[in-house]
Amino acid sequence: MNSPITDLKGYARDLAARARAASRAMMDVPVGRKDFALGKMAELLRTRSGPIKDANGLDLEAGRREGLGPAMLDRLNLTDARIEAMAVSIDQVARQTDPVGQIIEGSVRPNGLQIEKVRVPIGVIAIIFESRPNVTADAASLCLRSSNACILRGGKEAIHTNLAIAQTLREAIGSAGLPIDAVQLVESTDRALVPELLKLNDQIDLVIPRGGESLIRAVVAESTIPVIKHYTGNCHVYVDKDCSLEMAEKIVLNAKCQRPGVCNAAETVLFHRQIADRYLPAICEKLAQRGVEIRGCPETKKLFARAAEASEEDWGKEYLDLILAVKVVADVREAVVHINTYGSHHTDAIITDHLPTADLFVRQVDSASVMVNTTTRFSDGYEYGLGAEVGISTDKLHARGPMGAADLTTYKYIVRGYGQIRE
Amino acid sequence: MNSPITDLKGYARDLAARARAASRAMMDVPVGRKDFALGKMAELLRTRSGPIKDANGLDLEAGRREGLGPAMLDRLNLTDARIEAMAVSIDQVARQTDPVGQIIEGSVRPNGLQIEKVRVPIGVIAIIFESRPNVTADAASLCLRSSNACILRGGKEAIHTNLAIAQTLREAIGSAGLPIDAVQLVESTDRALVPELLKLNDQIDLVIPRGGESLIRAVVAESTIPVIKHYTGNCHVYVDKDCSLEMAEKIVLNAKCQRPGVCNAAETVLFHRQIADRYLPAICEKLAQRGVEIRGCPETKKLFARAAEASEEDWGKEYLDLILAVKVVADVREAVVHINTYGSHHTDAIITDHLPTADLFVRQVDSASVMVNTTTRFSDGYEYGLGAEVGISTDKLHARGPMGAADLTTYKYIVRGYGQIRE
Repeated sequence: MNSPITDLKGYARDLAARARAASRAMMDVPVGRKDFALGKMAELLRTRSGPIKDANGLDLEAGRREGLGPAMLDRLNLTDARIEAMAVSIDQVARQTDPVGQIIEGSVRPNGLQIEKVRVPIGVIAIIFESRPNVTADAASLCLRSSNACILRGGKEAIHTNLAIAQTLREAIGSAGLPIDAVQLVESTDRALVPELLKLNDQIDLVIPRGGESLIRAVVAESTIPVIKHYTGNCHVYVDKDCSLEMAEKIVLNAKCQRPGVCNAAETVLFHRQIADRYLPAICEKLAQRGVEIRGCPETKKLFARAAEASEEDWGKEYLDLILAVKVVADVREAVVHINTYGSHHTDAIITDHLPTADLFVRQVDSASVMVNTTTRFSDGYEYGLGAEVGISTDKLHARGPMGAADLTTYKYIVRGYGQIRE
Repeated sequence: MNSPITDLKGYARDLAARARAASRAMMDVPVGRKDFALGKMAELLRTRSGPIKDANGLDLEAGRREGLGPAMLDRLNLTDARIEAMAVSIDQVARQTDPVGQIIEGSVRPNGLQIEKVRVPIGVIAIIFESRPNVTADAASLCLRSSNACILRGGKEAIHTNLAIAQTLREAIGSAGLPIDAVQLVESTDRALVPELLKLNDQIDLVIPRGGESLIRAVVAESTIPVIKHYTGNCHVYVDKDCSLEMAEKIVLNAKCQRPGVCNAAETVLFHRQIADRYLPAICEKLAQRGVEIRGCPETKKLFARAAEASEEDWGKEYLDLILAVKVVADVREAVVHINTYGSHHTDAIITDHLPTADLFVRQVDSASVMVNTTTRFSDGYEYGLGAEVGISTDKLHARGPMGAADLTTYKYIVRGYGQIRE
């Protein structure tokens, strides 16, 4: 860390101009060169794990001094295993199919013009994230895979770690003969810098905030650059009348308990009234044994006495914890209306053996992922075969649901003729 | 027109809530029903041309009273031929392939989960446009084709015409058993209404402003809803050293003169220095004969004495008129840098017989459409085979270049299992 940067506007402009220049150079780079750079990134992360951990030690020390809680300190802490996990993740990106240059559609028009719609990089992507330093490596590798230049802005508490990682990645990029400014980490930890970056819509094409809702809302409010939002998930499981108790129990328990702190965990379970008297108490009992607090509608409370009363607010909540809202509904239509009203359009599941019911649910639930007879926990780029994941978009435009490297591309139309003109 | 609407906030909320309800119903509508509704829209526009022209008469009368210029009055004027053109355009949309339900990708994962990425409507789209009343019919038909509900906000000067058209379209939608609120026209002409609509990001999914740059900038500044921008085009033709004068002349004249007032007309022509002494004066002479004013770099002025001197500003200008900026460049690389620096990333063309030069231009020009040996004027949804066009996006996210009905869709992931859970 050198002396603090005082001209924030100039610093932001300079970062963006370097990124734009790097992105122009990246438009015309062979895939093999990127594969090599990605392989080198993983390799150097492994060989430089010592200095990276030293830098991480500075952040941990500062964090302890400033009274960060144990959860925050744990997220910040880079062990050998975590560095290895970052390297493995980049190795996966290195082996991934390259999205750039893919011909999405093509046709020959009646006048003989050949039209191709071809995947190309977006250009310059700014990623603004909070404490986990692995985002630096993940985001940089996915941006490189898709031939974008990225500007990474991590949390103040991880600045030394992020700098050490970014330095390593830039060295790998340079060794492959690619422009090192394809990856830049913001060195200033001044909060006033972010609004400066978010105004540079001529130089930066896309902003992706990765973090809590307040971070995302702040970015949306400030930005004149398009933002892809990854809001959190209020995911539902609807247990239809036509399914086995065994399958319902297995899926509900997995959706709620396997990892309750993530966005694709279930937050509300809806039971069809016809099976509620048998299924609801049985499943709630199993959930309670796993330490889940149940907040139910009045009917739920009658069927499972230990349930607390759910307020109107509970239906819209993302607990990210061992708490579950439970409601009895008349049928699949009421379930769909409830989900479309209170849900966050992230991931919702139905459990049913009845095909027309499944089809109706799939058509009418307005969510990025709709699951039939499986757990919401599978809503994930890796599970969908997209490779490493940028995040899970809750937007409808550009990218919806799990985002892979291909979602960091746009397209251009290439039109080839031999002198055709318009009459 | 009834009494003026005073509670603008309440009126905006009501419009948006109706649109959301209609969009939910539209999620589950068979294609045949939409085909029928579109056919009926075209039919009713024809049979109701009398009352529509009467309403148009009121707007023309008011326009004359308020001193609208002849160009504005002409754009506003609905003749029988223009009503027929609207109907023909809707007939085309009626025959178009329906984008909704298309399986974009699909796979079976190692754990047996079936993943499908399926095209679905975006939901509620607000379209804010200026005086030409045909936008009412075009936008409504494309939104219906893609199963979206739309809120249309036209110019004050066309309010009676737009209301008459919208009423006709709603009647057609109702006769097909579809929710009439799938098409709503804003009845209030109060300017303060638009900012109210642009804040309703829970109910409206996308805003498309269609009109001049100042309209678009105002919408972007106010909106918390994602906006797809259709800024204007500063399109280039680069005449390489390896092409025939005949082809260069034909394409440059077409790109500049065939319809100079549209966004895909050329605004700058770049000549390779090696052929400039022959090609530049010959082509500028032909352009001048067609009434084109040439504004050139110093070298251009030496080769074509009648050229005015281009200022730095000229390189960035969209004239939309019989004016052309002309510059001599050292080679294709300088042309690419000029285009990426001063262009608007809309449509740019190269004229060359040399394959590596064409390939370099195609790869490195960062524009929505890149043309080889043909005119920029072909950058158009209909010419690309997309059917009727929503507009030409100058954004990179979601949709780039000419937008058809498929660009008014998003997708959802449908995941089908048989009890799989995540371990």
